Amino acid sequence: MDEYLRVALLAAKKAGAVIKESFHKEKLVEHKGTVDLVTETDKKCEEIVFSSIQDAFPDHNFIGEEGSAAQGFTAELTDAPTWMVDPVDGTTNFVHRFPFVCVCIGLAIKKQVVVGVVYNPILDELYTAVRGKGACLNCEPIQVSDCKDLGSALIITEIGVTRDDATLGALFGRISALVKGARSVRCMGSCALDMCFVASGRAEVSYEVGFGGPWDVAAASLIVEEAGGHMADPAGGPFDIMGRRVLATSNAGLAQQVGAIIAPLPLGPKEPQAS
Amino acid sequence: MDEYLRVALLAAKKAGAVIKESFHKEKLVEHKGTVDLVTETDKKCEEIVFSSIQDAFPDHNFIGEEGSAAQGFTAELTDAPTWMVDPVDGTTNFVHRFPFVCVCIGLAIKKQVVVGVVYNPILDELYTAVRGKGACLNCEPIQVSDCKDLGSALIITEIGVTRDDATLGALFGRISALVKGARSVRCMGSCALDMCFVASGRAEVSYEVGFGGPWDVAAASLIVEEAGGHMADPAGGPFDIMGRRVLATSNAGLAQQVGAIIAPLPLGPKEPQAS
Repeated sequence: MDEYLRVALLAAKKAGAVIKESFHKEKLVEHKGTVDLVTETDKKCEEIVFSSIQDAFPDHNFIGEEGSAAQGFTAELTDAPTWMVDPVDGTTNFVHRFPFVCVCIGLAIKKQVVVGVVYNPILDELYTAVRGKGACLNCEPIQVSDCKDLGSALIITEIGVTRDDATLGALFGRISALVKGARSVRCMGSCALDMCFVASGRAEVSYEVGFGGPWDVAAASLIVEEAGGHMADPAGGPFDIMGRRVLATSNAGLAQQVGAIIAPLPLGPKEPQAS
Repeated sequence: MDEYLRVALLAAKKAGAVIKESFHKEKLVEHKGTVDLVTETDKKCEEIVFSSIQDAFPDHNFIGEEGSAAQGFTAELTDAPTWMVDPVDGTTNFVHRFPFVCVCIGLAIKKQVVVGVVYNPILDELYTAVRGKGACLNCEPIQVSDCKDLGSALIITEIGVTRDDATLGALFGRISALVKGARSVRCMGSCALDMCFVASGRAEVSYEVGFGGPWDVAAASLIVEEAGGHMADPAGGPFDIMGRRVLATSNAGLAQQVGAIIAPLPLGPKEPQAS
């Protein structure tokens, strides 16, 4: 485990240095969708992280957005050691020099995440976790908030990249219903950092439906669990790392309170249903 | 002007040190409303900032949430030198150790803000402006984004502290309409820092209706203007510092694009109408 963590940390630090170095410069931006962006830095960081891991563990698998089977990429999560990497989570923030950007590196073995690293090089915040060993922020142990009541909870969520009326209507319907029963809501533009904020006790609930894939949440899900938090599916039931639906809370009671509000509400046509 | 800025800076730094020192500690929280919080630190910082300014300028006025007439507090803005101070903007963030908290100090003379200081002691970001002299972040000149098109703009807004269905419905109706035409939306929980993010080019639009009062926006409005940005009323027309309605954009064209979307939409019953 130590060797997995060491390689993940080194890769995150190397990619983070590239993000930090280019953060204040002009960016060449390409569009994956109308509001879904990608930059040279995404590609450079992807290359750095993947080659660092492949050099160290040539027979491990990857699940990612763009890799080929020849590079060890698979579409399905198997029992084999599988890395789930988002080299730049928060690309829109990166383009706008909004300081919530991170590198996410998670390793699953037997379908369970065992090592997680989330590094924000701009605020110099490094979140790490190894299964069974707790979670840290910059090497100091972290713990979730002890808040039990949704009325005192801070919720973080994101609006994603779908912009049709029906999906936006469903999305804001849920946020509005949640906010009515909670203290307030924040949107920072990085699903992984949202979850890490729950892990470090800065917020009590992080909720999103329809993010890119398991690479956005794998590492952070372990960090939440190892900080004492609770991972669930927003519709109830266990968290499915492949499901593109996440509800991270400080405890199971808050997950129930959130679920009671949002599970009965309809999803938009472009949002992933519970499996 | 230099003396006004010097005193404002000193007061902001002193209050910022208190915020930073207590940021990671347990807080004694009181409720002004269901979700509207106040802490010992708010009171301590208020005392620090007001006494620093009163000692230096005993005949100046103040507009604030809680001061008395005997202390020089007025409800209306006159031509006299008038300080507008929010000792802790982002109290909910402060309570949750969410790193967007700031001290806001603005001075208006002849109803025009001439000095503005917004200091986030947690991220150590100090925004300053003197009318006609430009705006700075940590002593480096800042400038708004050159984005002209709402479709490429990042919008920051806040949901405020009103939680009735009609007001929330109107609020999310506007956010949803705006988001449909823009790149994405962020909520960070501090109106003043939202505006400073527009000033520093990290976002293109900051929009809020129904915040506490002029102390939330006075300093930041000058920082936006001196960074080359545009201040307006969300319903169109000029920005009214007493109006509890703000639209800060990188330029006038973006303000028009935002206004065309939100001005026709209804306000909620608890939101301030345009004067």
